[in-house]
Amino acid sequence: MGLNDFDTVALDEERNALAIIDQTKLPGELEMLYLTTQKEIWNAIYLLQVRGAPAIGVAAGIGIYLAAREIQTDDYDEFLKEFRKAKDYLDSARPTAVNLSWALNRQEQVVLNHKGCSVPEIVEALHQEAIKIRDEDVAVCKAIGEFGLTLVKPGDGLLTHCNAGRLCAVKYGTATAPMYLGHERGYNFKVFSDETRPLLQGARLTSFELKEAGIDVTVICDNMSATVMRNGWVQAVFVGCDRVAANGDTANKIGTSMVAMAAKRYGVPFYICAPTATIDMKTRTGADIKIEERKPEEVTEMWYAKRMAPEGVKVFNPAFDVTDNDLITGIITEYGIARAPYKEAFEEIFRKKAENPIL
Amino acid sequence: MGLNDFDTVALDEERNALAIIDQTKLPGELEMLYLTTQKEIWNAIYLLQVRGAPAIGVAAGIGIYLAAREIQTDDYDEFLKEFRKAKDYLDSARPTAVNLSWALNRQEQVVLNHKGCSVPEIVEALHQEAIKIRDEDVAVCKAIGEFGLTLVKPGDGLLTHCNAGRLCAVKYGTATAPMYLGHERGYNFKVFSDETRPLLQGARLTSFELKEAGIDVTVICDNMSATVMRNGWVQAVFVGCDRVAANGDTANKIGTSMVAMAAKRYGVPFYICAPTATIDMKTRTGADIKIEERKPEEVTEMWYAKRMAPEGVKVFNPAFDVTDNDLITGIITEYGIARAPYKEAFEEIFRKKAENPIL
Repeated sequence: MGLNDFDTVALDEERNALAIIDQTKLPGELEMLYLTTQKEIWNAIYLLQVRGAPAIGVAAGIGIYLAAREIQTDDYDEFLKEFRKAKDYLDSARPTAVNLSWALNRQEQVVLNHKGCSVPEIVEALHQEAIKIRDEDVAVCKAIGEFGLTLVKPGDGLLTHCNAGRLCAVKYGTATAPMYLGHERGYNFKVFSDETRPLLQGARLTSFELKEAGIDVTVICDNMSATVMRNGWVQAVFVGCDRVAANGDTANKIGTSMVAMAAKRYGVPFYICAPTATIDMKTRTGADIKIEERKPEEVTEMWYAKRMAPEGVKVFNPAFDVTDNDLITGIITEYGIARAPYKEAFEEIFRKKAENPIL
Repeated sequence: MGLNDFDTVALDEERNALAIIDQTKLPGELEMLYLTTQKEIWNAIYLLQVRGAPAIGVAAGIGIYLAAREIQTDDYDEFLKEFRKAKDYLDSARPTAVNLSWALNRQEQVVLNHKGCSVPEIVEALHQEAIKIRDEDVAVCKAIGEFGLTLVKPGDGLLTHCNAGRLCAVKYGTATAPMYLGHERGYNFKVFSDETRPLLQGARLTSFELKEAGIDVTVICDNMSATVMRNGWVQAVFVGCDRVAANGDTANKIGTSMVAMAAKRYGVPFYICAPTATIDMKTRTGADIKIEERKPEEVTEMWYAKRMAPEGVKVFNPAFDVTDNDLITGIITEYGIARAPYKEAFEEIFRKKAENPIL
């Protein structure tokens, strides 16, 4: 059994469990986790065993359904109270990813829409919605891939940062969707994968999943992306995102903005791959995005055979940075490619979505 | 005994050895190495046990003297032939650092200038020149520190990449010289130290030496430097260099150019600290600088408890990059601060050097 035999996140109906590939074990071991309790699911999100905005959304949608199954009451108000407790708890696992609260709010809306129904009926509605969130993710990633593919040509060198790959979604991924679809069609891309410090998602996950799929992939350190662009080896950058503000400013894995600066300098188009669920029109600009800070040990000792910085030294470890909209060539959604001015482009995209939703 | 009890590179006259702090063991262990054979000295340079352009220059100056001591002949021509063999061998340890060949050529000139002298007299002249190269390094770093200090003010946040610290010279370092001198004078700098993948010189060495000296230092991953600048925490960047071209284009540790791009974007002055020995007027622009590529394992497994990228994945591992002169605010030498246009500024600096050398 290999990576291509599993979805990254799934609802295991037999086990009544959230089934995930444990991403902290990759690329060394391919291990599935079957999570049933709220605490296990919270931990899996917090510890990045499941990570990447779309996968977190799907995991949260399934997770809150599983939590709702456990609520022991026939009373709607009591159910809603317990549901919200579970929702707030899961929501606290990661502060920056908008998909987490997006999926939880969506499920809350299901509960609110079913006021008057029995608790088992509400739980079944949550079940159906969880499956729908999952199916939408697959369709959304595929659509982003098709739009992305129109921006490149066979033989192109592509660069990505972190993992916005199939390991951050159910399948295809966002930033990797054009790569997978192009690969199926014989595009022969050459992909550069930033290792992505401190958690090395690029080295461990992106290069692993692309290699498993038979795509030509080269790992570089984050600080080498300018060099490969200067050398003329990259024709487009595709990255994912954790939150896109109404003006197009984009929060994504720490270091993304530095890739964007290098791309600008060397004339390489820089694309954000953003499911519309990631676009938050209530966030006016990047300045309004709260950036999660994580623990120092991720920088100084995690992964290492021994500690790599002196004991007691101060560490600053922000998980994300903001790439300003002027550094972004286009934002690829499942309803088309937005270009500056972004607010107007997003409004057009949300219009399309309302008129003709993908699922 | 602590770090401050040793010079980074020294001639141990009793042992007739090149005495160095083994930098691959830091920050965990402080271990001195005493190297006597050419092979040991070549290895120490190749393996980065001694690293950083100035320290490599001093090590080569001492190393070639030690090699010359071993030449068993009374004949000048035979001595010169053997000397050149040793010189070419040591010169092959690192391709990019100009100080290596600079120190070796300087010692060769001593041999050529002493044609007609006895071999023991020539060896003694090499001995004196090795000591002079060492003393000059201390004086040069101190002068760079004084010029650098005129560019900042007490309480400033400073950022550096890699290690151009006292561990890359005999003492003071180049990029750290303003930090050490300022610290002695109560400037209370807050220094950010890029960890510097793949070899982690910033995490292992710079943060170690600054912390040992009592300077406030915070380690960040390379991809976080844009964030700390965006946050307004950095008032100046000081970095070292491995080779400066006549037009000011500068080769330094991989990733330097990305720091410079971020500094430009956020209006932070970006300074190269460059002993004149590092300025190569025969190299016209950065395009003429050969960039060393190192082995993939440095990226995928060195330091790590287990391999961090899939087996067999391709890796690109350039050791340096070129920062174009338009990204550089000034180049600080021991004879003053050069600003664009650099060629003319360097000519002026070399005029000062010729008129009034530092030692």
